[in-house]
Amino acid sequence: MHCKRTVGDGDLVSLDVSRYESEESSGASCIGILNTEDGTCTPLPPWCRRSGPRKTIYLDPPNVTAAVVTCGGLCPGLNDVIQNIVFTLIDYGVPEDQIYGIRYGLRGFYSRDAKPMELNAQAVEGIHLQGGTLLGTSRGGADIQEIVKRLSLWGVNMLFVVGGNGGNAAANAIQEECDKQGVLTLVAACPKSIDSDILVIDRCFGFETAVEEAQRALLAAKVEASSAFRGVGLVKLMGRSSGFIAMQASMASGVVDICLIPEVHFTEDKLMAYIDKQLQKKGHAVICVAEGAGQDMLMKSGTHQGFDASGNPILQDVGTYLRHIIRKKLEGVDMKYIDPSYQIRAVPTNCNDRIYCKVLGQGAVHGAFAGFTGFTVGLVNTHYVYLPIPVIIQDTRKVDPRGRSWNRLKTAINQPEFV
Amino acid sequence: MHCKRTVGDGDLVSLDVSRYESEESSGASCIGILNTEDGTCTPLPPWCRRSGPRKTIYLDPPNVTAAVVTCGGLCPGLNDVIQNIVFTLIDYGVPEDQIYGIRYGLRGFYSRDAKPMELNAQAVEGIHLQGGTLLGTSRGGADIQEIVKRLSLWGVNMLFVVGGNGGNAAANAIQEECDKQGVLTLVAACPKSIDSDILVIDRCFGFETAVEEAQRALLAAKVEASSAFRGVGLVKLMGRSSGFIAMQASMASGVVDICLIPEVHFTEDKLMAYIDKQLQKKGHAVICVAEGAGQDMLMKSGTHQGFDASGNPILQDVGTYLRHIIRKKLEGVDMKYIDPSYQIRAVPTNCNDRIYCKVLGQGAVHGAFAGFTGFTVGLVNTHYVYLPIPVIIQDTRKVDPRGRSWNRLKTAINQPEFV
Amino acid sequence: MHCKRTVGDGDLVSLDVSRYESEESSGASCIGILNTEDGTCTPLPPWCRRSGPRKTIYLDPPNVTAAVVTCGGLCPGLNDVIQNIVFTLIDYGVPEDQIYGIRYGLRGFYSRDAKPMELNAQAVEGIHLQGGTLLGTSRGGADIQEIVKRLSLWGVNMLFVVGGNGGNAAANAIQEECDKQGVLTLVAACPKSIDSDILVIDRCFGFETAVEEAQRALLAAKVEASSAFRGVGLVKLMGRSSGFIAMQASMASGVVDICLIPEVHFTEDKLMAYIDKQLQKKGHAVICVAEGAGQDMLMKSGTHQGFDASGNPILQDVGTYLRHIIRKKLEGVDMKYIDPSYQIRAVPTNCNDRIYCKVLGQGAVHGAFAGFTGFTVGLVNTHYVYLPIPVIIQDTRKVDPRGRSWNRLKTAINQPEFV
Amino acid sequence: MHCKRTVGDGDLVSLDVSRYESEESSGASCIGILNTEDGTCTPLPPWCRRSGPRKTIYLDPPNVTAAVVTCGGLCPGLNDVIQNIVFTLIDYGVPEDQIYGIRYGLRGFYSRDAKPMELNAQAVEGIHLQGGTLLGTSRGGADIQEIVKRLSLWGVNMLFVVGGNGGNAAANAIQEECDKQGVLTLVAACPKSIDSDILVIDRCFGFETAVEEAQRALLAAKVEASSAFRGVGLVKLMGRSSGFIAMQASMASGVVDICLIPEVHFTEDKLMAYIDKQLQKKGHAVICVAEGAGQDMLMKSGTHQGFDASGNPILQDVGTYLRHIIRKKLEGVDMKYIDPSYQIRAVPTNCNDRIYCKVLGQGAVHGAFAGFTGFTVGLVNTHYVYLPIPVIIQDTRKVDPRGRSWNRLKTAINQPEFV
Repeated sequence: MHCKRTVGDGDLVSLDVSRYESEESSGASCIGILNTEDGTCTPLPPWCRRSGPRKTIYLDPPNVTAAVVTCGGLCPGLNDVIQNIVFTLIDYGVPEDQIYGIRYGLRGFYSRDAKPMELNAQAVEGIHLQGGTLLGTSRGGADIQEIVKRLSLWGVNMLFVVGGNGGNAAANAIQEECDKQGVLTLVAACPKSIDSDILVIDRCFGFETAVEEAQRALLAAKVEASSAFRGVGLVKLMGRSSGFIAMQASMASGVVDICLIPEVHFTEDKLMAYIDKQLQKKGHAVICVAEGAGQDMLMKSGTHQGFDASGNPILQDVGTYLRHIIRKKLEGVDMKYIDPSYQIRAVPTNCNDRIYCKVLGQGAVHGAFAGFTGFTVGLVNTHYVYLPIPVIIQDTRKVDPRGRSWNRLKTAINQPEFV
Repeated sequence: MHCKRTVGDGDLVSLDVSRYESEESSGASCIGILNTEDGTCTPLPPWCRRSGPRKTIYLDPPNVTAAVVTCGGLCPGLNDVIQNIVFTLIDYGVPEDQIYGIRYGLRGFYSRDAKPMELNAQAVEGIHLQGGTLLGTSRGGADIQEIVKRLSLWGVNMLFVVGGNGGNAAANAIQEECDKQGVLTLVAACPKSIDSDILVIDRCFGFETAVEEAQRALLAAKVEASSAFRGVGLVKLMGRSSGFIAMQASMASGVVDICLIPEVHFTEDKLMAYIDKQLQKKGHAVICVAEGAGQDMLMKSGTHQGFDASGNPILQDVGTYLRHIIRKKLEGVDMKYIDPSYQIRAVPTNCNDRIYCKVLGQGAVHGAFAGFTGFTVGLVNTHYVYLPIPVIIQDTRKVDPRGRSWNRLKTAINQPEFV
Repeated sequence: MHCKRTVGDGDLVSLDVSRYESEESSGASCIGILNTEDGTCTPLPPWCRRSGPRKTIYLDPPNVTAAVVTCGGLCPGLNDVIQNIVFTLIDYGVPEDQIYGIRYGLRGFYSRDAKPMELNAQAVEGIHLQGGTLLGTSRGGADIQEIVKRLSLWGVNMLFVVGGNGGNAAANAIQEECDKQGVLTLVAACPKSIDSDILVIDRCFGFETAVEEAQRALLAAKVEASSAFRGVGLVKLMGRSSGFIAMQASMASGVVDICLIPEVHFTEDKLMAYIDKQLQKKGHAVICVAEGAGQDMLMKSGTHQGFDASGNPILQDVGTYLRHIIRKKLEGVDMKYIDPSYQIRAVPTNCNDRIYCKVLGQGAVHGAFAGFTGFTVGLVNTHYVYLPIPVIIQDTRKVDPRGRSWNRLKTAINQPEFV
Repeated sequence: MHCKRTVGDGDLVSLDVSRYESEESSGASCIGILNTEDGTCTPLPPWCRRSGPRKTIYLDPPNVTAAVVTCGGLCPGLNDVIQNIVFTLIDYGVPEDQIYGIRYGLRGFYSRDAKPMELNAQAVEGIHLQGGTLLGTSRGGADIQEIVKRLSLWGVNMLFVVGGNGGNAAANAIQEECDKQGVLTLVAACPKSIDSDILVIDRCFGFETAVEEAQRALLAAKVEASSAFRGVGLVKLMGRSSGFIAMQASMASGVVDICLIPEVHFTEDKLMAYIDKQLQKKGHAVICVAEGAGQDMLMKSGTHQGFDASGNPILQDVGTYLRHIIRKKLEGVDMKYIDPSYQIRAVPTNCNDRIYCKVLGQGAVHGAFAGFTGFTVGLVNTHYVYLPIPVIIQDTRKVDPRGRSWNRLKTAINQPEFV
């Protein structure tokens, strides 16, 4: 290992860097974890550990058998993270044929259809320039018992789980089950959320890349809308429960007139009236809607709603609903609807995300060699840190309707409340 | 006018540059205009006139009043064409305040909502770097009588119509009506079709740019499909009656396993069997379908079909149909559906299209100053020519299922017949 | 002004968020401002003020006359910052004809060649999608007396200076001179450095965009080098005294074998030996060199050095020197040298920089309306803050050779010391 | 082989599709090969053979041993051509382990340092999305005797040479030597020239991609020039003896004021006067110069000139010369010089070039299986054809200063003569 510089186990990073003269001036409803349902606020621990290589390593590299798995939906940067976990393991001295890649998510541990692959240097060479995940991924519940059985059977003593809230929860469950069964596997997670809705983390990897790609759809909508008489450009973006992509892409593009996110309620009538006003004023309008926005309105409109296999509520399609209702309610509108969907997830990372992924991948390996388990690695207040998984999975991070970011967007596009 | 070099009125370009030893070896069903319904073939005229500036010009530039209109759907390059018509008119010496831009398509001649704008040099400066059309556009029928009335009223003696098959037909009708009424307006058209389905023309402006953008969706589909277990990436592209975009984007991307176009029939069973075979062989599959493909199959499947206001048949959505049927018929498929829709039309031109548009814009103006009317300008066998509008509007250009291009794609992706 | 949410004057952001168990484990030579010459470390103030709108504003918007000026070299984001200063001023209620744009840098205050322009909403519409600066810019010393004379004469009571270390120093001098002369102009600065070498600030606007563009050159160098026998791809990037662009672009690209920056010494012999070793091992090598690297080596090599008009040392061209010396010393090398130069500065911003610029522009205006003067606005530990100008201009920020970032790169590319 | 459709051996494509009323109106100095030195014109053969698969193939696929080599400078599309030669060979039934890739150009046949590689399907999978050449390349003379010795020794009966004028000449010499020695190797060439200066061919592969990338430099120069007081943006592009890239990139960009190419003489005084006029009129100017432009002027200016190892004249650096002389002669100019150099060659192909390369690769293999030798494949009047190598290597294609393309550019940018 070339890196001679190490970080200390006692090195800490503050989770809270601001001091407010009053609660009101904080510009945010809560310093900590805000429950947007009941408005309660759970404070965060004040400090967390720095990520990085330690002086003393807990495992002898030649004796390490590692496994890497990606789970959940695609997100730019998965290949970057995989590559850098592998490179760092090799750099520590882990033999290349003792690094396994689990195929197609957590079920790859026990599925008959796809055996683990060997993750050597050649296998990951150049994959950082490609979207997707070399390993494959899948959604859905995992059989923790079966996974721990394989970890034990295959002698895996380091497991790297790259996943979202669900993936981190699974990693936590695996770690607890390992503890219970006395299986000596260190479990490190790397939080992945294209919506950037993981608690505490400054932003998730791939998020900036996704915003860049989302902006393309918004710029296209502007071109379409402004080239049509009473043109409305409507773009549906990702964001089931958090509107960060919609908010940031709207802010960046400079062409959005209305931005609708799950965290901010709106009524159909107020919205329609405002669109009409924009059409009269500018001749066209561009609307950006996160997929989770307006779900209460959709339910009232009578469309049936259920739950999927994982128990997540099935979202109504707010995009096609708005397309329909705008056409119906506003006369002579020339509607241009864009749903970029998977195009946003499948692109390679931009430079900033690429570097971020490198550091996360390196950090996960450093943490495991330091003997940590049940932790996740992330960027907090511009510093890379280790966090106990339970800290980040208790809720999803949301746009604070009273916070500075949302207010900046509202100021920038002069958007009123639609209630 | 700086350009001293002129072309001769007798300069001709051959429309047919190939000689075949036999009909079979031609690799094409027809040298000329193929009727794909009944297989008949209408030969083209052997020669057409070269585009370019003439020694003698027919109108005195200070006395020219010109109007420019764009109609139909967006296509990359509209702004380029507008800009170069304006620059060339100014270069001839037409006063800048005598160039009108008609807003939002042909109805802009008589609509109360949007008066014509002045198209001076400043108004078109830099618009070639932006997608869309500065003038706005719209679909649908035009009132030829009303248009000719305004042309006469406003003293427009040069009209430039940038539009598709419909736009060219309207231009032709306007020219005939002008003749009939003795209105002295020269009518020049510039053929626009993002599908590149205009007869005789090598390719339409904006087509290459659209293929480039379409390829992005295909590459995203490949990333999604190959990252999923039994992943199917399905992309719906433009192409109501002609599959050129789907064919060329599939060819370019190098990631498509199956390409479905309107010109080539397929049966659901054969298709499903082949997709399943690909999934077993490679683990995933990428399908590119043109929106007009499989309409006969959809009609059989019982979905209702009608006609829109313009009398065009309303296409069934083959994309969502295939998404549904593949999921239903093939077990355990992880379906990723991408419909890039307007994103493909709204991008700025690539260099090649930009140059093409410049030459078309210049050519249209040269033709009008040469006193031609009822003509359209295009690229034929790499040469810029003038064609009588009726020659190109008698049908739409289609992919020849027996021709070299389609066969090259089939060879490249090893696609069998699905009948 | 739509924005109802305000920040408090007592709101503070911590400048130091880490706690280290020992100086050694800090992984950095200094928490504060490191003097790389003598190794001394000046601690920062622990807290700074939050940026944002205040409850009480100091000036009555209709009475505000504002001026905006950009100075120094181009950097992605100048137009974004200008646009958002203007939009925010208008949003506060400043009349559009009371916002001046000073042309071509600070000398535009008194130069005869270029009068100030009116910066209304229409003038800045859409400029965020274009590189460069609408106002023009220039390098070099400014006549503070003359500037203050014009500020007084024109009744400018808000001045926004977007510039680098020099521009901030000038802003500071203007503010002091205004104080001295009793001219009532509030001076707000916005720190601009494509090298991101401004003290305290997390990163400067435009930096990420520049890294993205720089990466293109590195990827091209990789293609060239790997396509040649004993190919060496050599890329010179910006970075007079700080190697952040070179470091981050090398890290992101994943294709660089050797990265040379001003902060880290190297000897020619060691470097040549290592390049040769890479060539033998991999067949080719990619080198990224910051323009300020190896200046001591160049001086020893006898090339003459002087000072420019501003008193800055004229850098020797390390790029062409390395090109020459590698060719000369290493047999049979196929050298491919790329100097992307201005291409890196002239691109439009990526989304993240665009948002950053928006917030900076808004923040500068909020600060001025809050009555602050002599301040600069920036991102510190992910929070937007106001800093007294003198804090940030006492030195340039540099890559810490003992810090985590440089060590991560060295680990990632396995680069040894070249001394 | 899936492709059932074949072309006939008697199928012909016309090389001349235009008919002019007079020599003057042709708008071109010569229909055929123009000698720009003495103005003489060598007519082309009127017809050439169509490219494509034949009914009868000359070699039994299992008995084919093929070799592929790339030579000369990089050009976008080399990997595409390699990939499609390999895929088409495999498609015919050639065993994958009988396809050799010669490393680093023609000298790879006998160099000890780099043995040929096996070009199987896996080796070329996905390389079309990457710039450069998988095989490597090099410039310079080849030992024809040695090459033929290896062809004979290794039993290579199909050789594919992808190269420029020199590469095609070598292919021709190899074919002649094979004939002489009775070595049964069929030699197929694929003409490569990023300058697109190969005779008869509509355009060379990679050219459009190069123009696209070159345009980026021009747009950057515009941003830099227009952001500076009396700013001059100067961009040097490729083009030793033919100015096609400079001409087309200037045309496409719409931001160039002056375009200098090798085919059109200019005097320093006239040029300087015109730049100054532009600066006074617009405040800035953008100049695009091909590397081979103004060489006569440079020789007069006293700089020494010689010949390189291959006997090509060493060009003086017109870019740095103009940078120097403009600064010296025009007062107060803010000069921004951009030399994108290798960045233009190293990018992956755009869609159109990608398709072109596919068809060329397929065509070369079809031609060899048809038993042709000593031929090259190219696009002529939009049709793919086979040409005898000697037809295309007798000269380089040049921009005709009296032709339509150059005149269109001059009209578009209002450029006068500088003589």
